[in-house]
Amino acid sequence: MYQVLNQIHSPADVKKLNLQALTTLASDIREALFNRLTKIGGHCGPNLGSVEAEIALHYVFNSPVDKFVFDVSHQSYTHKMLTGRKAGYIDDTRFGEDSGYTNPDESEHDFFNIGHTSTSISLATGLARARDLLHGKENIIAFIGDGSLSGGEALEGLDYAGSELGSNLIVIVNDNEMAIAENHGGIYKNLKELRDTNGKAEHNLFKAFGLDYVYEPNGNDIASLVRVFESVKDSSHPVVVHIHTQKGKGYTPAETDQETWHWHPPFDRATGKATVNWGGGESYEDLTSNYLVQKAKSDPKVLVISPAMPMALGLGPEKRQMIGPVQYTDCGIAEEQAIAMASGAAKRGAKPVVITNATFLQRTYDQMAQDTALNNSAIAVILNFSAFNTMTDVTHLGIYINSIYGNIPNVRVLAPTNKAEYMAMMEYAIDQNDHPTIVLVPGNGVVNDNRPADKDYAQVKFRVEEQGSKVAIMALGDFYQRGEALSRQVEKELGFKPTLVNPRFASDIDCETLERLKENHQLVVTLEDGIVQGGFGEKIAAFYGDSSMKVLVYGLEKKFYDRYNPEELLANLGMTTDAMTQKIATTLRVSQ
Amino acid sequence: MYQVLNQIHSPADVKKLNLQALTTLASDIREALFNRLTKIGGHCGPNLGSVEAEIALHYVFNSPVDKFVFDVSHQSYTHKMLTGRKAGYIDDTRFGEDSGYTNPDESEHDFFNIGHTSTSISLATGLARARDLLHGKENIIAFIGDGSLSGGEALEGLDYAGSELGSNLIVIVNDNEMAIAENHGGIYKNLKELRDTNGKAEHNLFKAFGLDYVYEPNGNDIASLVRVFESVKDSSHPVVVHIHTQKGKGYTPAETDQETWHWHPPFDRATGKATVNWGGGESYEDLTSNYLVQKAKSDPKVLVISPAMPMALGLGPEKRQMIGPVQYTDCGIAEEQAIAMASGAAKRGAKPVVITNATFLQRTYDQMAQDTALNNSAIAVILNFSAFNTMTDVTHLGIYINSIYGNIPNVRVLAPTNKAEYMAMMEYAIDQNDHPTIVLVPGNGVVNDNRPADKDYAQVKFRVEEQGSKVAIMALGDFYQRGEALSRQVEKELGFKPTLVNPRFASDIDCETLERLKENHQLVVTLEDGIVQGGFGEKIAAFYGDSSMKVLVYGLEKKFYDRYNPEELLANLGMTTDAMTQKIATTLRVSQ
Repeated sequence: MYQVLNQIHSPADVKKLNLQALTTLASDIREALFNRLTKIGGHCGPNLGSVEAEIALHYVFNSPVDKFVFDVSHQSYTHKMLTGRKAGYIDDTRFGEDSGYTNPDESEHDFFNIGHTSTSISLATGLARARDLLHGKENIIAFIGDGSLSGGEALEGLDYAGSELGSNLIVIVNDNEMAIAENHGGIYKNLKELRDTNGKAEHNLFKAFGLDYVYEPNGNDIASLVRVFESVKDSSHPVVVHIHTQKGKGYTPAETDQETWHWHPPFDRATGKATVNWGGGESYEDLTSNYLVQKAKSDPKVLVISPAMPMALGLGPEKRQMIGPVQYTDCGIAEEQAIAMASGAAKRGAKPVVITNATFLQRTYDQMAQDTALNNSAIAVILNFSAFNTMTDVTHLGIYINSIYGNIPNVRVLAPTNKAEYMAMMEYAIDQNDHPTIVLVPGNGVVNDNRPADKDYAQVKFRVEEQGSKVAIMALGDFYQRGEALSRQVEKELGFKPTLVNPRFASDIDCETLERLKENHQLVVTLEDGIVQGGFGEKIAAFYGDSSMKVLVYGLEKKFYDRYNPEELLANLGMTTDAMTQKIATTLRVSQ
Repeated sequence: MYQVLNQIHSPADVKKLNLQALTTLASDIREALFNRLTKIGGHCGPNLGSVEAEIALHYVFNSPVDKFVFDVSHQSYTHKMLTGRKAGYIDDTRFGEDSGYTNPDESEHDFFNIGHTSTSISLATGLARARDLLHGKENIIAFIGDGSLSGGEALEGLDYAGSELGSNLIVIVNDNEMAIAENHGGIYKNLKELRDTNGKAEHNLFKAFGLDYVYEPNGNDIASLVRVFESVKDSSHPVVVHIHTQKGKGYTPAETDQETWHWHPPFDRATGKATVNWGGGESYEDLTSNYLVQKAKSDPKVLVISPAMPMALGLGPEKRQMIGPVQYTDCGIAEEQAIAMASGAAKRGAKPVVITNATFLQRTYDQMAQDTALNNSAIAVILNFSAFNTMTDVTHLGIYINSIYGNIPNVRVLAPTNKAEYMAMMEYAIDQNDHPTIVLVPGNGVVNDNRPADKDYAQVKFRVEEQGSKVAIMALGDFYQRGEALSRQVEKELGFKPTLVNPRFASDIDCETLERLKENHQLVVTLEDGIVQGGFGEKIAAFYGDSSMKVLVYGLEKKFYDRYNPEELLANLGMTTDAMTQKIATTLRVSQ
């Protein structure tokens, strides 16, 4: 087991190997990948497909003097194994040491924490410019998948490199013919032409950007890769090396169903079946995708748009087909395009609905502000994974959404507290003609309580779910259930029934309700599933600033949290029911 | 005067004209442009260059059924004159009716408020998708300058149109060989090749994206333009029409010095000299550009980066040359590239400093958060026009910056209150190795008071400029002088001397200072030059939420203000010195 990998402690050890040993190393690494992936899950397709390329990179180049920047960096497992971190793959007790993305805290061979797509070329041009300024001589290598190429930042990077750099930069385009789902965009027609002509097609996007270009069809063959990398090493100018690899290489299920196997939960290697059943029962992904299919069928004006993330809300190939190509469009990894196109479509009378992950919407501040909100285009955006307890990788946190989109004029952010409210808000967001409206998918499982939901969210109106006195608990979205628990505890411990408010709007305040609370309340407690800074609670605190109402603002801090335990984090922030009850008691005592 | 233009009340009138009359119309329109531009200033080069193209568009297409989307829309003056809005050009009493950008409130021929670059193709794809959905048949036309093409959103739009649309979309690339300054990026080498070969170059960026392509060299000749537009009208698929025009056409100074004449203040037509002397005396643009030249000379690690906006901080061609091409780089209109490249350069030991306008930095939320702040790359960003009283066009407001960048972990936003502090903060931001640091250029003229500035801003520390009691006035950045005035007035009217605090950090709070204020203050008043929501004051209000300290939060509202009178706006918000003094008196009375 791992006969060659066992000898690898740093890239220097890779350079000593002959071709046969390198080939054995590749199969060792695939075994190590299986060891980790079958047990804890992770990015399967991208890593299985790039084993040979990353071995060849370390064989040819001299890391960390020569510098690799992996786009998204979800495909960097092989690089990690070759740079002193194989324990995170072969030792089951040490999986936790590895973040799944490049991470400078782990190794001097990593230069950036990366998890969003399309950034590698731009970051690499920066390394290259500084190298030139400081009279360095090393190679700078960006390693980018075909899927990431459609992002505006990557295209800006290619454009810059194509004329402004004039020195060494090697952009390796790892073309496995897929984004997470199938690719969308004119670029991909061109990549296909280039593959079909062994790099000699009439049109060549990279050359049109002013870049030198080399094609290598055998992207899973170490000898070929070593040859092509040697040929561009120490290049005096930017060059694109287009390599053709097979996503999921070496594992039939992953080779066959590439969308499912892009990222996969723990699985049985023999059958390819998942060995855990996360969620189970009702899921918001199923609810959303089923709803969208039905909604599109019943209303021909509905236009579903996804920037390469249909599966973020359960919209697999079959459901996409049910919606059909007139009403469903994937613009590739191009969030700016998705939002601006939605705005245009709304102005022409369609009902656009954009679906993606919260963390990726960050890429569209300006498109949401200028293209959309300034024009008050009534688009709907459904965001998954905005909850603090769903994705905990520092690169994929959804906890900043309220502080971003809650402060753009005209934009409404709706935070539902149960299934009925989520479904009603989604329906409203799509049908309305009022405002750009973002609906956050709840992150704490499907809650089926008996609270009915309003249909209309045109007016900012908080909902008083339980009338009490003295203390008003405003529990936003996902934290509503924590608000309920806090309310019970306060009643039990402090002897009075507090008021429980479901704010529903994360972006705005309902001054009328806030004003009325002054009558028989001394304290307002806000709870929100996101950072406090720029968020919901601060708006409440400012509203009451000149009054005698006290305000306790609870939420996360403005920090880059990484792979945390959600409940521990809340405990550290004083957000257990007990701690908050105590704090309420203290605050009331002081103010009396 | 205006013999043909006088007959034009709508596009229908244009269609009736013969070629000779169309040509006369073009010179009428240039006269009308001169009438407005010489008297109130505006975008000269872009409008002078596109007169014939916009006449031909209205001659060939049928607006508003056929729909034009003008990129940036600063070149849409001719379109406006042809669609019922000529009074804004020929009648000096009615200049104010015209926003200088497309504006749906002005006319049914405008579909979007637009002022940022690179958005037209994406917006147009949305119009086109919705048209297809609703079985419409009209032409959708995006009109985009060559300078705007380098923006990621535009490239994402081309990529989408190149394969996913499959129906009518006409992208007119108005190639005048310039952004505001000279163009930068590989795209521009390709455009030159295409011009030099009459559209037949070996490489063609547009075809590589999968688009159909037509070249028209005579972009200022109406007959040629009509011919080429007729040839693509009702196209069944997306097509790029690349037209070559002359920026500043018809006015020698503007044809000769295109950078100076992109936008110009009022001028004497005979001499080309400005007839107003805005500013005069010391300016932050001169101070900044002189400083950057000197800093780059004295420190070879300094790398000045601008996304096509060097003149935002006075860095004209001569000063750019003094810094030299190793230490100065322009990445074209590509803000994402600018910030990500800066992050990369910082990681490799350079001292990157990005200069641009506040409103354009909005395009980089994700690059600042993920590429930069998450990696704590110590880049410097110098932002002009973040003040509420500098740019008042709704598309160019800088008042959102604190709510955006003040809520990203690790990012520091510094708001200086006088010249000494601005210069010290800029020096610190460039030399430090602590955090991504944004320095806001003051908007209220160069203040030379005697307050000295600290050199080090590594620790968040508010500065108590004047110690008093009862009321603490926290006057951020540009509003510091208003805080001073308020302090004097409070002392005079209310009979006690308040404490005056210069917070310096717009992004963070200094808990120690805030805590200490509790000892002998009852009220904190925050003043900020930006929207309150997500801004500085709300952080203060939340800090004091559970204490007996009252907080009054003053600033602008979360709104899209357009072409306002700054002092009137403040008066409407209750922000005159008198009104605030009264409010302070009331608040103190209630709390006693």
